[in-house]
Formats: sequence, structure tokens, C-alpha cells
Amino acid sequence: AQSSVTIFGVVDASISSYSNKAEDRKYPTVANPNYFNVGTVTTSRTGLGNSGYNASRLGFRGTEDLGGGMAASFWLEAGLGNDQGTAGKSGLAFNRRSTVSLSGPFGEVRLGRDYTPTYWNDTVFDPFGTSGVGTSLIYSANNGYKGNTNYDRASNSVGYFLPPNLGGFYGQVMYSFHEQVKYTPGNATPDELNNSRTGRYVGGRFGYATGSLDVAASIGSSTVGDNFHDGLTSKVNTWNLGASYDFGPVKLFGEYSQAKNRVSDSITDPLMGFRSPNEPSVKGWLVGATVPVGAGLVRVSYSSVKYDLDEATTLANPGAAFDPIFNPYVSNPDPKANKFAIGYVHNLSKRTALYATVARVSNKDGAGLSVNGDLGFAQSYRPTFSTAQAAALTPKTSTGYDIGIRHTF
Amino acid sequence: AQSSVTIFGVVDASISSYSNKAEDRKYPTVANPNYFNVGTVTTSRTGLGNSGYNASRLGFRGTEDLGGGMAASFWLEAGLGNDQGTAGKSGLAFNRRSTVSLSGPFGEVRLGRDYTPTYWNDTVFDPFGTSGVGTSLIYSANNGYKGNTNYDRASNSVGYFLPPNLGGFYGQVMYSFHEQVKYTPGNATPDELNNSRTGRYVGGRFGYATGSLDVAASIGSSTVGDNFHDGLTSKVNTWNLGASYDFGPVKLFGEYSQAKNRVSDSITDPLMGFRSPNEPSVKGWLVGATVPVGAGLVRVSYSSVKYDLDEATTLANPGAAFDPIFNPYVSNPDPKANKFAIGYVHNLSKRTALYATVARVSNKDGAGLSVNGDLGFAQSYRPTFSTAQAAALTPKTSTGYDIGIRHTF
Amino acid sequence: AQSSVTIFGVVDASISSYSNKAEDRKYPTVANPNYFNVGTVTTSRTGLGNSGYNASRLGFRGTEDLGGGMAASFWLEAGLGNDQGTAGKSGLAFNRRSTVSLSGPFGEVRLGRDYTPTYWNDTVFDPFGTSGVGTSLIYSANNGYKGNTNYDRASNSVGYFLPPNLGGFYGQVMYSFHEQVKYTPGNATPDELNNSRTGRYVGGRFGYATGSLDVAASIGSSTVGDNFHDGLTSKVNTWNLGASYDFGPVKLFGEYSQAKNRVSDSITDPLMGFRSPNEPSVKGWLVGATVPVGAGLVRVSYSSVKYDLDEATTLANPGAAFDPIFNPYVSNPDPKANKFAIGYVHNLSKRTALYATVARVSNKDGAGLSVNGDLGFAQSYRPTFSTAQAAALTPKTSTGYDIGIRHTF
Repeated sequence: AQSSVTIFGVVDASISSYSNKAEDRKYPTVANPNYFNVGTVTTSRTGLGNSGYNASRLGFRGTEDLGGGMAASFWLEAGLGNDQGTAGKSGLAFNRRSTVSLSGPFGEVRLGRDYTPTYWNDTVFDPFGTSGVGTSLIYSANNGYKGNTNYDRASNSVGYFLPPNLGGFYGQVMYSFHEQVKYTPGNATPDELNNSRTGRYVGGRFGYATGSLDVAASIGSSTVGDNFHDGLTSKVNTWNLGASYDFGPVKLFGEYSQAKNRVSDSITDPLMGFRSPNEPSVKGWLVGATVPVGAGLVRVSYSSVKYDLDEATTLANPGAAFDPIFNPYVSNPDPKANKFAIGYVHNLSKRTALYATVARVSNKDGAGLSVNGDLGFAQSYRPTFSTAQAAALTPKTSTGYDIGIRHTF
Repeated sequence: AQSSVTIFGVVDASISSYSNKAEDRKYPTVANPNYFNVGTVTTSRTGLGNSGYNASRLGFRGTEDLGGGMAASFWLEAGLGNDQGTAGKSGLAFNRRSTVSLSGPFGEVRLGRDYTPTYWNDTVFDPFGTSGVGTSLIYSANNGYKGNTNYDRASNSVGYFLPPNLGGFYGQVMYSFHEQVKYTPGNATPDELNNSRTGRYVGGRFGYATGSLDVAASIGSSTVGDNFHDGLTSKVNTWNLGASYDFGPVKLFGEYSQAKNRVSDSITDPLMGFRSPNEPSVKGWLVGATVPVGAGLVRVSYSSVKYDLDEATTLANPGAAFDPIFNPYVSNPDPKANKFAIGYVHNLSKRTALYATVARVSNKDGAGLSVNGDLGFAQSYRPTFSTAQAAALTPKTSTGYDIGIRHTF
Repeated sequence: AQSSVTIFGVVDASISSYSNKAEDRKYPTVANPNYFNVGTVTTSRTGLGNSGYNASRLGFRGTEDLGGGMAASFWLEAGLGNDQGTAGKSGLAFNRRSTVSLSGPFGEVRLGRDYTPTYWNDTVFDPFGTSGVGTSLIYSANNGYKGNTNYDRASNSVGYFLPPNLGGFYGQVMYSFHEQVKYTPGNATPDELNNSRTGRYVGGRFGYATGSLDVAASIGSSTVGDNFHDGLTSKVNTWNLGASYDFGPVKLFGEYSQAKNRVSDSITDPLMGFRSPNEPSVKGWLVGATVPVGAGLVRVSYSSVKYDLDEATTLANPGAAFDPIFNPYVSNPDPKANKFAIGYVHNLSKRTALYATVARVSNKDGAGLSVNGDLGFAQSYRPTFSTAQAAALTPKTSTGYDIGIRHTF
């Protein structure tokens, strides 16, 4: 049996440091005349990290030739927290990918947990591959946006991939079951949030790759909240378009991404009677380049995101309503953030590389993204302000670096 | 070192759907004249499941020849939740089997976590191998019966297996340590439930297999609760008998199983002074068949279980006493359930198969078994009624299907 | 990829029994004239254990030759609870070691979770290798001493090892990041315990091994508690010296170890004005021997530890102050414990062995060590007294045995 199994993996460790600066923009008021402005506060953290260049992982995979151009395959891939000896948060789990497939001239049908089509463009067209401090802000802003747990991967999915022989065209579609209980008759449904359809993902990606060019578009919808009795359904609808072109001495990357949170509820303004617009969104773009230098590779990217906060009646912020009668002048400006990242990878072999990356995020108008974005590892690693400080402080800049080694097997 | 290790496994994924129907059999009474009967409620769930044909798993095993007919072996086998990328509930754990063995002409001594002898008959003589919606009701009713956590497997066990050269006779015995603390003197023992002996299992299985015939009987006892100071010990005592005969065009299966919950306590009826009978039980039987059809296999089974509810003074239901003085007429009828399952497996190769199974359970007199029984995966998958509804509703039928692919490596 | 990965492991299972005896040394007083002395209480536990001879584990490792004497390596090693089918407490996690290395003529740089330098002497110079009931008391007393979680291993570490060609001299240093958040300005730091530096480890080990002799010394410091605003830092500072000499028919072992808990705080006695000494410590020594007997090995050791309880103002016992005014006569004697262990290992092959070990610990003056020390497995296995009894009873002796099999792969 062993001959049919390939063990593979990545162990990537880095000395990393993140630093976040925030400032107090509050001032004494009539209600609180003694308010003391605490000024600027910087939090920083230095330690051993993982996945600075490529995500650390351990996997088992294999393919069986069934004859007639058909094959059956499996792929079990687990994340590793190799800096601390943990394997994921609760022991080795094949949370990165766990699939069984049947492929043939018709393409491939794949069942299990897998990457979403909409995520592929975000990682493929990011010179930093959404790993480490250089990760694109598109990733940072979209990961978990409006409670979306199916941003990069989805469980319980059925996927279909076009066969590879279509003259450079490629594509995939994916449907992920929500696995919520359905009640018949419907009024027997418990009156709770997320009791139906939450967790469903549907999406697709189509592209063209030939020679130096790779271009792909994707579209997807993730159901992030619903309630049967309210008739409420909250979705994050995403589309993006990315491309790369390899000129030889330099390879260019670009991407545009947009995610809208559509809430199809029946809430209307009690005074004005109009229906809320219900379309907060986040839009982002990235340009980047990689430049081969001998056995090394220079990587650079600039990414930018802008939030549209129109959160009047969204699920996650029911109380943050725009109030045209009593508070018509309070209109929060749209938060924005920019990020610049540059790094160098030195390949000791095909399997082993040393790398260094530095990055800086500038937040405006209330945006609070940090260099390490919202990566699972980074979330717990990111310096956090105490509750009282967090309430008083407005995020400004975030800087960080990774210096590490990546070994694949 | 690698040459001594075999990696093996199963990745089995299916599109599965389960549906449970229940009805409200309550009516307005003098105390509650406005009671509104909610009628029939159906709950259903559709999604991607695992282990519909064979249990998904990943394992490592190996054998070392020690010479003189002796060998040392190890076997580490973990369950997989490959539909969601989890590996068991809390990361990859060798919960299916983790043993080290020494074998020779005398047989095999095996230490660790392993299947119980009493479980073997339930799975070997079930045409569906206790996997998926076709799983025998004997499994569904016995798994966890009266809090028995050692139904299918037991930790901390010492097992002995007869050698394979006994002319078709085979057999095994197993003892599983309870690993509770013993206090000396005994009256220093804390007055708590399950402080001694709970968790112990002892059992054996003996059979005869030759040519087309396979027949085996097993007997076992699992200690499910006790209290030193009360002198109370609650056990689930099981015996079963199964057989299969392969006629070539068809292979027939049959099994009878009985589990009694014996509680050796000293509780007597305060009025009548007699000792409670204390022997609730569950009895079940199964008949089934498999029919090879070219590269495929048709599988069919019919199973039935009946509970004896005599729960007067059992540990789990101390208050559910039969009361011969004040409530002599309330005697719940014995719950019963029947199940019919049929399926087809199409082998694409020895390692890869497509399969489909449908099944239906009919519950009577309060039984509440569902198609997917009490499988770990199925438990969380099974539609559940809300608390209020669950109290009002009586389970009726349960139906379900699995359509999937199983790939072994 | 597979060819670059070696799977390795140990499955070690034993029938083990531990027994702890304690006695009530309290008596009736004026305040409690009816006190009933409960005498001697023995708690014992028998079951299937793991890691009695060598720690059960499953690992993946590999090395890539980079040319020029350089190599890259990875090592992922998880502990196994094979008696219960668990893999560590929460599924398979590479908690024993998870590292990536770059090595060359300069030595080796290793990143990740690894053994601490100070632990190596404790295990290398213990004839029982700090596994099973024979484990040295130095291990039992130091593991977790004063809350030290970096006793045997440290996460987030950077290690350096001398190259192997130094004429018998060997050595390593290790630094482990604390990964706490740093606040600028400092007075923005939350006023909480362990908010900075806790978790840091720094240490080194240097030795000489040639022919029959092996001798090594190590020194290390582990930060176990601190508070920015109090200016408090609590460290466990350890040094030890061990040696072994192989005479052929017998190999002798010896070690001395000392761990001091230094607390650099500013607490002074409110009455006397002097600064507290703040140096509780634990000192221990071991002598042992192994004697080859045909295919077997006899192992024997005697170890002893003594605590200095000077806990006036330590972090963990702020209230246990020596009070020179009101209670000058209460001076707890220093707890002491001795342990004798003897065992036999019978090798069936290089990979498979049967073994048996017995051990006895004698506690004096309040020491409460048990035969199984504080091994992860053993902690939950050790008989525990109920809360009330634990408060009343003084530990005396602890005895135990392991009879098992170890299989490596």
C-alpha cells in the first residue's frame, strides 16, 4: 500500500517582528472635561514564526490509474505550527485540503475540503503568495470579511475542474453544502440566527494561461448569516480579476477585487420608510513584480483597499445605522489602507531557500489592517491593545519583517 | 526505518441526505385545554459525508520478523473527517486502533486500544459493515447503550488471539483496565459515581471459518457505572451470534444480539420491600445478503431491535420507577424499530469504488433510531428537533441515502 | 518527494501499577478537640501505560544535501498515548520536536521547538532515560518547578550546535523567544502578571565524549513570571553536571543538578525593612549503573533531591512569608526525597525489547514526589487524594512497576 502514498510538506520558520502604531484622537469634552489624551502607543512583538515564505504543512497524497484515462486520487494536507510544535490549533488536522477525486477526459470531480475558486486569484497573482508579512491587503481585508468563514477554503464541497487540454483555458466551479437542518413545515424552524443556509458557498473561476501570460476571473457567493423567520439572508458576493505576465527579466502581477455584503432582509427605516441600501463593500487592487537575480528572486508589491461602510442594516452591525433625522451629519469616511512590501528569496536548492521580507501598512479613516493581515497564525501574533486602549486609539501604521528558511520535502 | 512502515488509509466521501419524521401525539387535557397539536414535523439534512461505504482513516503499521516464528507489530490507525478536513474531533488521533503486538506459535498478545470481541460480530455479519445509512440497527441500538463507551472499541486493553492454524477455529479474549484509583482503607474512597471499576471491559469471541461458512459467538461485559459506598455496579452484558454463508451467486448473513443492563445495587422499593428486577435490555436480529453483479455488489439487509424498558432502578433513570401502588397502569410498551437497507457498490478497481445506499427505519412505541444510527459522524449530522419540539414529538420514520466514492491506499 | 522523508517511531506499552502512601499527622487541638486522625491511606492504580522504556512517538524527518558540506533538515516528532489511542492530549501534535535546520562546517542552526540544553544532562545521564517508573528524581523535581514550562523543551527557539569534528568536544546554545507584546511607551503596558518576558529561555551545554567517557555541564535560565509595573521578574536558573563512564561489564552514571528561583522584585519586609532572600531552590544528585547481561541490560539508579523552601516573597507563594516577629519559630524543614529504581531490559532484536522496572520513593518533611514523577502521562495516572484528604495527609512512600514491550520503527 505504501507505494501509492506520497508524503510531502513544507517546514518554514522565520524570525519575525511586527509593530503596530496607533494614536489617541479623542479630546476633552463638556461631558468629560478631564480627558487625558494618551498620545501615540506602539505595540510590537518579536519571535519565531512559521510560513513566512510558504505555508508550513504535512500531507499525504496519491493517485491510482484506473485505465482509460481515468484516475482516482486523494489529498490530505495539514497545516503546521512548527515554531511551537503544534499542528494546527488542536493537533494535526487536514484543514488545508482533504479531498478524494475522480478524473478523466471529462475533467475532475473533487469532494471534500478545498480552496475556493475566488481565493485562487488572490494568492496566485500576489507576488508574496499570501504568505508572511508581504501578504496582499486584498487577502487581509477579505479574510473573514463580514464573518465569511469560506473565504479561502470551504468544507463539504463538490468541485469540478475542466480537463487540462483546452488550449490554455482552465476553469473550475465549486459548491459547498451548508449542512443546516431543514424543517418541514417551515414554521417549525427555530427562530435563531444562522439556522439555514449559513455556510453555503458557490463560485467559479475561469482563466487562460499560455507561455508568459496568465489571466483569470472568478466570482463567488458565501452565505454568512440568515434567519428563516425574518426571511433574512446575508451574503458576501465576491468577484475578482487577476493577471500576470512574465517578461523574463521581470514578471508583473495585477489584481482587482470587490466583495459586497448583500443583506436581503425586510428591515425598513421606521421613520422614513425607505429600504436600507445594504451594500457595504470592500474593494482592493494590487500591482507587483518579481525579478530573478541569479539564484534569488526579488519580490515587490503595492496593494490598496477601501471599505464602503454603508452598514445601516447589516447583520453584523444592526445598531450602526445612518440616521437621517437625528444625526444626519455623522457620516464616517470610508476607511482606506495601503501596503508596500519588498523581499528577497535566496534559493539554496530547489527545496531549500532563505528569505527576508519587510512590509508597511498605512491605515486611514479607521482602517485597522496590520502587516500580517488576518492569517490564522498572525492573528494571535499581532500585538493587541488592551481593551481600554483599543477603544481610545485609532490604528495608524503597521510594519514588520520576516527573516527565515523554507524547506520542502 | 521507513522500509518498516506501511502507510494505509481510506478516503470515502458521499453526498448524503437524512430525513427524520416525528409526530405530536399529545392532545388537550383538563389541565391544558388549549393544547395545540403541531402535527407532523420532518427534519432533513443534506451534505457531504464521509465513511458511507468504508470508514475513512489514515494509518501507520509495520511488522518485524523476530525469527523462530515470532514477530513484533504495531498498528496506529486514525479516523478521518475528510468532508470537513478534520481528523477526528480534535485532530488526528489513533482512536480507531493503536496497538503493539508480540506474536508467535502461541498466538498473539496485543496491547493498546482495539476493537472489542463483542463488536466484531456486529460488523462482520452486517452486509453494510456498520458503515453509512445501511448500518444494522443492532449497531445503532447498542452503541452507547446505557452509557457504554466500550461498545466498539476499548482503550487500555490486553488482548490475546489464537494462532491462525487451528483448522478454521479462531478466537480472542480481551481485558480492558478501568484505570480507576483504588483506596485503602476502602472507606477513604470518595463518595462519587464511577470512582471504581467504571470503564472495565472483559469479553471473548470464538468462531469457525472454512470455505464458505463463517460462524462466531461472542460474550462480553462492560462496566458502565459504579459507586463504592453504595456497593452499586452497573454493567452492560452482551452476547451475540452471527453467521454468513457464501453460496457463490449470493452470500447470506444473519445475527442475533442481546445486551442486558445488570445493576447490582441494594435499592429496594420503600413500600413493597422487594428488590427491583433491574434488567432492561435490548435485543436485535439481522438478516442480509450480498449478490455479486459483474464488477459490482448488491447489498441488502433487514434488521430489527426491541427494547425491554424495565428501568425501575437503573443508574441512568433513577426516577423512572415502575410504581405498583400509585401508578400501576402506566406501563410503557416496549419500543421497537425495524430497518431495511439496500445498496449497490461498483468497483472501478480493487482500491476505488462508487456506491449508493438507501435505507428506512420505522420506529414504534417511542423508539427513536435514525438511519445513520449513532455513528460519530452521523450524530452531529442527524437532524435534531428543537428542545420544545423534541419533548412534544414522537419519532416515526427515518430515511436516508449515501451516494459516494471510496478510495483506499 | 517521498524518498526524502523517513517515518520513524516508538510504540511502547506496559502493564503498570503505582501506589502512594500518605499519613495523617494532625491531632486534636483546643480549637478542634474532636479531630479524628484518619491514619494511613494508600491510593493505587493499575492499568495499561505507555512510554515505560522509551517515549512512544511518531515522527517524520529528512535531510537534503545542499553540497559544499551544507545540508537542510527537518524533524517533526509527536508523542503518542498509544494505550488509549490518543496522540498527545489533543490529537497528533509535533510537541516532542519540530525543527528546521541548516548545517555545515560551521555547525548547525536549528529553529522551532526542541529540547533545552539543561534537560539533556538529566536524561542522558539517567540510566532510565527519564522514562517510566525508574525516572530520576532530578527530573521529577525540576519538571514544572515554580511553573517552569520550558524545563525539558522550549518552543519558538533558535539553537546553535557545534560541528561534530572538534575532537570530542560538543556543545549547543539555545534562545527561546518569549513572544510577549512590548508596549511603547512602557506605561501603556497592562498591569498584569506575565505580560512581558515570561516564557523566555536561554541556555547552553558543553561536553566532552570520547571512547568510554562522556561528561557535560549545562546552564540555563527560564523566565517563569513577571510584571512590567512591579518591575518583577521570576526566573528558574539551573545548572547541572553529568558524566558516564563505560567500563565494559558495567557503565556508571552520575549527575548533580541545582535550580534556583530568583525573583528580582522590590518587595521588602514592612517591619524589618530588609530585602527578602528570594532564593528557594531544589538540588539533586543521581548515581546509577547499567550492566549488560547477554541480550539484556540491568539498570539501577539512586537519586535524591532536597528543596530549600525559602519562599518568603516568591511569585508563586506571596503569602507564605517567614515572619520574624509574630511567628519566628515556624520554620518548615526542607523537604527531601530519595528514590531507588532497578530494572531489566531484554532485547528480542535491535528494535523490539521486553522490560520490567520497579522503583520506590521515600518522601520526608513534606516532599510529595511519586515514582512516576511528573511525566505527562504519569500526572493523570498518579493516584490523587480527595481534596479533604489531600489537605490532611502527608505523603510518605511511593512504589510502582512497569512490565512492557517497546517496539521501534
